[in-house]
Amino acid sequence: MPTTGYDPTAVYDVIHRRRDVRGQFTGAPIPGDTLDRVLTAAHAAPSVGLSQPWDFILINDERTRRAFHAHVHRERAVFAASLDEPKAAGFGRIKIDGVLESTLSLVVTYDPRRGAPAVLGRHAIADAGLYSACLAIENLWLAATAEGLGVGWVSFYREAFVRELLAIPADVRPVAWLCLGPVTHLERAPDLERHGWAQRRPLRQAIHQERWHPDGQQ
Amino acid sequence: MPTTGYDPTAVYDVIHRRRDVRGQFTGAPIPGDTLDRVLTAAHAAPSVGLSQPWDFILINDERTRRAFHAHVHRERAVFAASLDEPKAAGFGRIKIDGVLESTLSLVVTYDPRRGAPAVLGRHAIADAGLYSACLAIENLWLAATAEGLGVGWVSFYREAFVRELLAIPADVRPVAWLCLGPVTHLERAPDLERHGWAQRRPLRQAIHQERWHPDGQQ
Repeated sequence: MPTTGYDPTAVYDVIHRRRDVRGQFTGAPIPGDTLDRVLTAAHAAPSVGLSQPWDFILINDERTRRAFHAHVHRERAVFAASLDEPKAAGFGRIKIDGVLESTLSLVVTYDPRRGAPAVLGRHAIADAGLYSACLAIENLWLAATAEGLGVGWVSFYREAFVRELLAIPADVRPVAWLCLGPVTHLERAPDLERHGWAQRRPLRQAIHQERWHPDGQQ
Repeated sequence: MPTTGYDPTAVYDVIHRRRDVRGQFTGAPIPGDTLDRVLTAAHAAPSVGLSQPWDFILINDERTRRAFHAHVHRERAVFAASLDEPKAAGFGRIKIDGVLESTLSLVVTYDPRRGAPAVLGRHAIADAGLYSACLAIENLWLAATAEGLGVGWVSFYREAFVRELLAIPADVRPVAWLCLGPVTHLERAPDLERHGWAQRRPLRQAIHQERWHPDGQQ
């Protein structure tokens, strides 16, 4: 078979080692060539109609990061207020971002104008371009993990706030605020599982044969 | 530095070797343990609030695949009709799916009810759960590539059609129809670039420093 001859071990190792990092950032520098490789990997993601609709905004500026951090913590309070006890108490113990401790903030955006109007594969599914931006994010995340870096996706924010903070045009959408940098270590289990917030479900519950089955599967 | 000691070479190799496959499927069987590893990798993706909102519908049935294939080709005609010459002529030479030739069809869905109502990290960004499903797709894609399989994402379809074809509930959203299986080879360049439909843009045009810059960068 012409498709054999590859050893997938290293890829699986990275996929399973990858974590969503909040508390383990050291703030140490990221070598420039490492960052180049990670961004090149993100940019190699599949995209609908080869539109490559993503952009990457690299943020070192402390003022920008402090402004975002303050916004995140206002949104944290909004979410906390929606919870009943004991969910609120549990949430109180969970760190939700490493914006100030991580080395770099990296915002990924989606630009629907790229390749438009005739984006091959997007006429029936407007969100297909948005999906492409997410594929780039996962490439970035795995490449960073392979380099020994940590990545944390912060989603406690309003898109309008980030758009204004970073001068993002109205027709471009911020998709993710990522924190990136060296870490002391990667935890073996997701933070939310370690804190008892949620449990991962068994894969078999996510698999359906031939068509959707109400109770999960088979 | 405690974060070194990993060799990212194999991960980059897979990220850069990965292609969106249409024409190279052989139809040969996928070993069961290979498929298990690939799905386990998809299921190990990050997700907002550890909600793991994805499901995977595995489709072997030929009748289902033929029905989808016919729908895809009706949508192909819809898109073709929107193009002017010579774009339409160029599109005519491009194969858009491997639904019938590939070994397996795999539909990834997004279920917003999973983990609801208190999904940590989703109160301000409703689409964050949808993004998670895309991260699982990229994990799946890279794992399959590492195994020597090809993956093709077909997006010439209406979500309502796929929902009805596969009995997907109204509140669950089909995100991707993927074709999966052994391939003769992976092309070195994306199909759309080989066919002169689109060119990849340089990474530097996608990088912005500190804030969005209108012309691209720096």
